[in-house]
Amino acid sequence: MKTYLDCIPCFIRQGLDAARLVSGDEQIHEQVVRRVLRLTVDLDMSQTPPAMGQKIHRLIRELTGNEDPYRDLKKQHNQFALELYDLLEPTVHSTEDPLETAVRLAIAGNIIDLGVKTSISDSDIQKTINDSLTASFDQTMLEQLRSDAECARNILYLSDNAGEIVFDRLLLEQLPTEKITVAVKGQPIINDATMADAEFIGLTKIVEVIDNGSDAPGTILETCSQRFRDRFENADLIIAKGQGNYETLSDSDKNIFFILKAKCPVIAEHIGCEIGDMILRRTLCADEDRKLILKGN
Amino acid sequence: MKTYLDCIPCFIRQGLDAARLVSGDEQIHEQVVRRVLRLTVDLDMSQTPPAMGQKIHRLIRELTGNEDPYRDLKKQHNQFALELYDLLEPTVHSTEDPLETAVRLAIAGNIIDLGVKTSISDSDIQKTINDSLTASFDQTMLEQLRSDAECARNILYLSDNAGEIVFDRLLLEQLPTEKITVAVKGQPIINDATMADAEFIGLTKIVEVIDNGSDAPGTILETCSQRFRDRFENADLIIAKGQGNYETLSDSDKNIFFILKAKCPVIAEHIGCEIGDMILRRTLCADEDRKLILKGN
Repeated sequence: MKTYLDCIPCFIRQGLDAARLVSGDEQIHEQVVRRVLRLTVDLDMSQTPPAMGQKIHRLIRELTGNEDPYRDLKKQHNQFALELYDLLEPTVHSTEDPLETAVRLAIAGNIIDLGVKTSISDSDIQKTINDSLTASFDQTMLEQLRSDAECARNILYLSDNAGEIVFDRLLLEQLPTEKITVAVKGQPIINDATMADAEFIGLTKIVEVIDNGSDAPGTILETCSQRFRDRFENADLIIAKGQGNYETLSDSDKNIFFILKAKCPVIAEHIGCEIGDMILRRTLCADEDRKLILKGN
Repeated sequence: MKTYLDCIPCFIRQGLDAARLVSGDEQIHEQVVRRVLRLTVDLDMSQTPPAMGQKIHRLIRELTGNEDPYRDLKKQHNQFALELYDLLEPTVHSTEDPLETAVRLAIAGNIIDLGVKTSISDSDIQKTINDSLTASFDQTMLEQLRSDAECARNILYLSDNAGEIVFDRLLLEQLPTEKITVAVKGQPIINDATMADAEFIGLTKIVEVIDNGSDAPGTILETCSQRFRDRFENADLIIAKGQGNYETLSDSDKNIFFILKAKCPVIAEHIGCEIGDMILRRTLCADEDRKLILKGN
């Protein structure tokens, strides 16, 4: 997905919000805003929006001298989500279709996204969980995911944020974990999950976790490690969480299922849905191609 | 009022919204956004926000080759407001305090502001009118306005938008029109009222109307004509409508009553009110000074 003109005011606002979250120094806020403006003047609009997000947050880390400004928030989100895990894990098992419930909760977990909203209250999260269990949802796509997960030999699961990764664990536990590799970010970027988060929430104990070598808030393959790119290439099923992964991989020819909550108007329009909709959809890779991919051809 | 960092993403969004309203050509939209970005990179934050608005809309007029892009919208708003005038004028007369009702309606009229919201529905306007008649309101300030209007010898009324100017007429009819000069903008700027609007809605028949010689969406004295500046200097009471006039004159030492609806978070914080509040307030000119001004000392 390319960058739209509507993304530009949002880049500036995100830069300002992030600068304020990380530093109380108004001079730094102004420096961030002016440098983001300078970056956007000559912006290549054919790039995906997270390519700019990557630059903005590199800037913020540079100007504040803080290599992981969201460390404490990520920890808070992980801890809060782990408390929910203890309540939600039995719920998943007690439902008629645990995979469906787990996918729904994985989408609910996607609300924890500081790139879009700077603060999220606990009650917002509770409401999102409740809504996610009843909201309308693409059942055909769910059946495709179920069947692809059964047939696939190599599944790559692209995680999104800290906290959310606990909800991903609920879903991963309903999938054949022996065939799955989970990827986290290679370096701190906003509140995206890194290896430290995967370890903290116990994910590394149940599934293989690798880092993608990149500090982009999405999956920009050129900025990822060779090891990750090999896994990406060899996967016959990819499950990609969140807006950043949708923005960076929506044009891919791989067999990718996107799981996200549409939180921004540009993405909602690109998907053809309403803001707030729960999205499970896959790349436009034709059914025939998909079957070939899954058969290893 | 200076420009705040929060104004910057809003400048970009306003530029984009306005470009889209005026032209269907995406290349022009992109040109506008890139040129606005270039202007903001080295922005002097001590300027008022309307100084930037003036530059943005000059740009849009230049790039679209359209000297008055909002002409049709202004006409629509005038016509719609004139229909309301016929209903509201008897309401003003039938209330216990016609001046209070007229001030309330003048604030309601301030909803018609394309600088903040690109589209306003008729039902939004009806709701605003109803709310404005009952919302809480600074009675002390109203009494000061009533008394100042009685004592003053020269009243200058700074109008804001087309459409809104019809609501201003309701208020002007409750004031000593023989002492009043109404100022409109010197050139088309967004949907601000110009002389054509004042004539169209019949304002020129009941009060003296002058133009301020400027194309700023507010009152930036340096960009106004000498004639206007003399009137401004000689007025012992100034009534200023809307956010643009508040932003450009809030630091003035003149006796100014601001009448507006607080529509943006930065202005609401500057005033110390909530977004949506109906505001009647005056400059911090001390009571003693005010009395001297009104006595002509």
